[in-house]
Amino acid sequence: MGAKREQNDLERLFDPRNIAVIGASRKKGKVGYKLLSNILESEYEGDVYPVNPKGGEVLGMELHESIEELPEPIDLAVIVVPAKLVKEAVHQCGEKGVKHIIVISSGFAEVGKVEEERDLVEEAKKYGMRVLGPNVFGIYSAKSDLNATFGPSDIEKGSIALLSQSGALGIALIGKTAQQYLGLSAIVSIGNKADIDDVDLVEYFSEDGESEVILVYMEGLENGREFMETVETLQEDKTVIVLKSGRSEKGATAVASHTGSLAGSDRIFSSAFKQCGVLRAENLREAFNWSRAFSNSPLPKNENTVVVTNGGGIGVLSADAAEKYDVKLLDDQTHLKETFEDAIPSFGSTKNPVDITGQAGKEEYEKSLRRAYESEEIGSVVGLYCEAGGGDAWGGAKAIKEVYEEYGDEKTSVFTFVGGKEADECVQWLRKHDIPAFTDTYECVSALGALYQKKRYLERMKNKEEIPEPDIPLEKIRNRLKQIRERDRLTLREDEAREILDMAGIPMAEGEVVTSLEGAVETAERIGYPVVLKIVSEDIIHKSDAGGLALNLENEKEVVDAYQAILSNVRKKYPDAHIKGISVAKMLQGGEETIIGGTRDNTFGPLVMFGLGGVYVEILEDVEFRVAPIGIKEARRMMGEINAFPVLVGARGESRKDLGALADVIYKISYLMNEVDEIAEMDLNPIKAFDQGEGCKAVDVAINLKRR
Amino acid sequence: MGAKREQNDLERLFDPRNIAVIGASRKKGKVGYKLLSNILESEYEGDVYPVNPKGGEVLGMELHESIEELPEPIDLAVIVVPAKLVKEAVHQCGEKGVKHIIVISSGFAEVGKVEEERDLVEEAKKYGMRVLGPNVFGIYSAKSDLNATFGPSDIEKGSIALLSQSGALGIALIGKTAQQYLGLSAIVSIGNKADIDDVDLVEYFSEDGESEVILVYMEGLENGREFMETVETLQEDKTVIVLKSGRSEKGATAVASHTGSLAGSDRIFSSAFKQCGVLRAENLREAFNWSRAFSNSPLPKNENTVVVTNGGGIGVLSADAAEKYDVKLLDDQTHLKETFEDAIPSFGSTKNPVDITGQAGKEEYEKSLRRAYESEEIGSVVGLYCEAGGGDAWGGAKAIKEVYEEYGDEKTSVFTFVGGKEADECVQWLRKHDIPAFTDTYECVSALGALYQKKRYLERMKNKEEIPEPDIPLEKIRNRLKQIRERDRLTLREDEAREILDMAGIPMAEGEVVTSLEGAVETAERIGYPVVLKIVSEDIIHKSDAGGLALNLENEKEVVDAYQAILSNVRKKYPDAHIKGISVAKMLQGGEETIIGGTRDNTFGPLVMFGLGGVYVEILEDVEFRVAPIGIKEARRMMGEINAFPVLVGARGESRKDLGALADVIYKISYLMNEVDEIAEMDLNPIKAFDQGEGCKAVDVAINLKRR
Repeated sequence: MGAKREQNDLERLFDPRNIAVIGASRKKGKVGYKLLSNILESEYEGDVYPVNPKGGEVLGMELHESIEELPEPIDLAVIVVPAKLVKEAVHQCGEKGVKHIIVISSGFAEVGKVEEERDLVEEAKKYGMRVLGPNVFGIYSAKSDLNATFGPSDIEKGSIALLSQSGALGIALIGKTAQQYLGLSAIVSIGNKADIDDVDLVEYFSEDGESEVILVYMEGLENGREFMETVETLQEDKTVIVLKSGRSEKGATAVASHTGSLAGSDRIFSSAFKQCGVLRAENLREAFNWSRAFSNSPLPKNENTVVVTNGGGIGVLSADAAEKYDVKLLDDQTHLKETFEDAIPSFGSTKNPVDITGQAGKEEYEKSLRRAYESEEIGSVVGLYCEAGGGDAWGGAKAIKEVYEEYGDEKTSVFTFVGGKEADECVQWLRKHDIPAFTDTYECVSALGALYQKKRYLERMKNKEEIPEPDIPLEKIRNRLKQIRERDRLTLREDEAREILDMAGIPMAEGEVVTSLEGAVETAERIGYPVVLKIVSEDIIHKSDAGGLALNLENEKEVVDAYQAILSNVRKKYPDAHIKGISVAKMLQGGEETIIGGTRDNTFGPLVMFGLGGVYVEILEDVEFRVAPIGIKEARRMMGEINAFPVLVGARGESRKDLGALADVIYKISYLMNEVDEIAEMDLNPIKAFDQGEGCKAVDVAINLKRR
Repeated sequence: MGAKREQNDLERLFDPRNIAVIGASRKKGKVGYKLLSNILESEYEGDVYPVNPKGGEVLGMELHESIEELPEPIDLAVIVVPAKLVKEAVHQCGEKGVKHIIVISSGFAEVGKVEEERDLVEEAKKYGMRVLGPNVFGIYSAKSDLNATFGPSDIEKGSIALLSQSGALGIALIGKTAQQYLGLSAIVSIGNKADIDDVDLVEYFSEDGESEVILVYMEGLENGREFMETVETLQEDKTVIVLKSGRSEKGATAVASHTGSLAGSDRIFSSAFKQCGVLRAENLREAFNWSRAFSNSPLPKNENTVVVTNGGGIGVLSADAAEKYDVKLLDDQTHLKETFEDAIPSFGSTKNPVDITGQAGKEEYEKSLRRAYESEEIGSVVGLYCEAGGGDAWGGAKAIKEVYEEYGDEKTSVFTFVGGKEADECVQWLRKHDIPAFTDTYECVSALGALYQKKRYLERMKNKEEIPEPDIPLEKIRNRLKQIRERDRLTLREDEAREILDMAGIPMAEGEVVTSLEGAVETAERIGYPVVLKIVSEDIIHKSDAGGLALNLENEKEVVDAYQAILSNVRKKYPDAHIKGISVAKMLQGGEETIIGGTRDNTFGPLVMFGLGGVYVEILEDVEFRVAPIGIKEARRMMGEINAFPVLVGARGESRKDLGALADVIYKISYLMNEVDEIAEMDLNPIKAFDQGEGCKAVDVAINLKRR
């Protein structure tokens, strides 16, 4: 996929040498006041120039009456003036040599003023300025100790870059992070994204030297593919966590194909994120917990997790959570015994969860955790503390801190304290020391599960496949589709669709469209019985209802009868239909029905879909999507992800199906969808998969062209 | 189902007029000290008698040297002496006329000393004493202001009865409840449940006049059916929430049937809980959130929920959560407009979530919440506050308190504050005032979803069906099974299984077991072609592998050939097999394959299962279970809960299947499983469902008897 955006240097947005606040206010309670006050309260060391035509003084500073009169060129101008004055301010900033602009002011695209917003950005572009906003609450940058927001002034420093598309929620989250000692490297209110967008910011944070986690609250995305490409090229130690809201929104576009109707836009977000390694959190708490784990812990080196606990109850709960979040508990009893036997009391248990008993204090925690950290076989450690009577919560916490400081950078570990006031205080204390501690076992294990998701993604990426170009005559296909469109049709007839598949090298049940009874019989004899006859007409969509379909014809007589019956049925029901002919196709015996399709998504563009046919796709919606194009390996992974996959490998005592042949078709469809813009959507439904080595064949194909 | 347990009067356990602490200790740090100290610190008004043979003084009280010398009969004795001394202490308590005993001491069944535990209970029973424990941390009772635990002394009073099977976790949870202002009516450490168990306690709390929620941390359950019955008969305003751990544990018993192998014990817990109205929480946080909602809020009166928010972002998140937790947002735009139009700023939105904008303060919250509470059409209210700059969190909180105090007992409402320190403080303040407030929208809506689950359960129960006795000759069936067992067989032959189904009035494909070629032909002619021939022998399980099966025989010749081939195949492969004959059965055309089965669970006893056949059951495990017996209505509900249910009602353009006939079979199988102990498990696999009005017929049946 593509390269980085050009001229994307946001360095001076996050590390400006000086700042102008255009619209700084003398009135407490005004945004222009709070913003200036936040900048001054932060430990920002550059020069700050408040600008207000009324002049005067605020917060001990003189107000400059115009941008023009500022004594030096400006790196960052924050604009807080009313919407109608913004464009002029932008112009003046340009004249003054400002590098970056943050337009706090609202009243643009979010209230329908799209034109005004475009003007503003164009004005900025004239001067090579980048614009954040409009309709934002500002930015915070740990690098320059700059809080140029009108949100809270109390911000915890750390390695999480927080991007919020919602201003209000973003501000609330700043408060929440501080409250939970979740350290931030930056906060950006993305607002209307008139210029600077998610892609710019992810690119910037991937190289800012401060951020390890990029946490995005997202409501929508314009350029999904570019976002994916940007995330895919991130370094291994950077993680993007997205809380995407609007899950319940269904794709609104009316669509004609199965593939299209199954591709609800939210579902595609999940597929696309999975594909490019974005971790999708379901809610705020999960997003925070995961961010904490990624900012405080390395990725696990292997799949073996050990739980060390002082209580059986929370041990069992953590094992339940491990199953849910796909965290694998080490089950090597010999190794467990060797590792922990002389580190725990005799009435404890070396089984995993390792029970160091309710009497465990600092020493026992330290000893057992140290053992876990030191074992090569163990990839991650979960330390639990249950605040029962007689225990020593602070002893546990201190032990954790000691061993974490020794090993925590090398080996993955997460911790939970369950209990009352003291337990909560221990958690807060650990958090303050950048140790990933939680108040609930499920959340702790969920965070560990996220680390494993990332580890597994990176492993797949290590052997990332190059997607070769299949030998498909794209120009020929495009021309053919152009011809069809010229006849003002959007839906291909069977003969046309067959032609396209043929050019793409996608196998279909043998057949031909004929225009005479003799032709029908001849074709049937050639391809062999049984055959299927089907009316071919662009005017008839529901062929079966029209009496235009006859299945399982076993000899010449049946073909003759069916041919005549179809023509007579159709002429009766659709006297005006233009009939191209009748398709005679081999009736395929056996094989497993699957569906392979392609469609397009507003955000992510071309998609490919796979599922088992019939009930699986129509009722159970047991299908997988990928953003196209994908290679053969990814196609096989995709197939493996449907619930009914075992059916294809013979789980019911039947033979294994030709997965390679299916993967090849998925790969080709994904290539077609990506390369041939004309195609809006297509379904191979069903495409039958035969036994290993015997390939697959589409029984029916539908191709629709894009509306203009 | 059954009646209440007799002689189950635990009144004096929770409201004792006096207490003896047997094993009270003078040493700080000892359990016998902490327990006495907790009792004295609580505001318990009865007499307290510490007993210790060493005598002396502790905490300003004189230690009695023996139970015998206590000056009056005792309601509650708490025993904290070493395990080996417990029985004698129990004996002395009995002699002294003690009513209830709590055995704190551990060292009994949990370490394998089952006998000693049994002895102890028997000793107590001699005197009519009830025993809680052993191996517990004690009880807390708000009613008598008694904290007879060795856990924390700081307990928040309220209406939640907390039962914990894990001692350590239970103590930790007490701390957690206090920390979160989750008010408790009682705490019980259930421990080994040697005498008093979950059933006794649920019964007691259902009538204690204090508890609205019974929150159970459960690891296992002995008497699942009795527990279900007890919960089912609770009053509408009592709710049982169970956090059952051990989800990841798979049923360990080796089982032969499909039904059996699908019935993992944890899955059955979920089914049984759903069936009796227990709400199963997944983790501690969920259990706490739900408990809060139930103890602070009435059940919703209708399904229309309205969200009132000051921020769009958390509004969208709440809508996502509503979809996930099956909470229905009111969509009546006219009503929404009428209700809220003049209560919110002009730039707000009356769409649901109702956006009262970031500027909303106390007045706007009060007005809009009041409107929501007052609308008859609205069944529940979700109030959200997002702490962005410029808002007034405390104003929002105070508005909530005011309207909640006016309407909160009448109408369901839940609240969330998202933000930093101030938001958290508002949530704590609301909680302190018994208002269900949360720090996360998902958790808030999840709690509301739990209220709706309960509401829907109660509605179903209003029309609870009586389960009639079907006309099935149980004695005859039992006798027949006894005969088979007498021949030392556990698996029924086809002819025997057919006989049982026949007696039960469960339809099967017409057929007969014959012992001659002539018989085979005669039967085939009588029932009509095509037919299936199958070997009938108790020694041959895999009939198909043995060449003992022939399908789709269309005429006499084919029957004759198949008959001879089967005999010859089988004699070759199993020369010693005892051959009872050959089954000739109608080969059923069409219909949808389903599976109906019965099995037994260690905790809940007889179960019935339903699913679609083939892949659905084997790979997708798309089946539902119920604890038997169930009536026709419940059987239909059960069918409706499988994912592939739409297949049965013709979602794929096929005809609707005869659901009534299937439900009748499910009902009868559930009755058989419940009444005929001999049957370990049975599968009707497949049983074909035909079109509406045409019934269903089992194609194959397997019945296994219980091992002795």
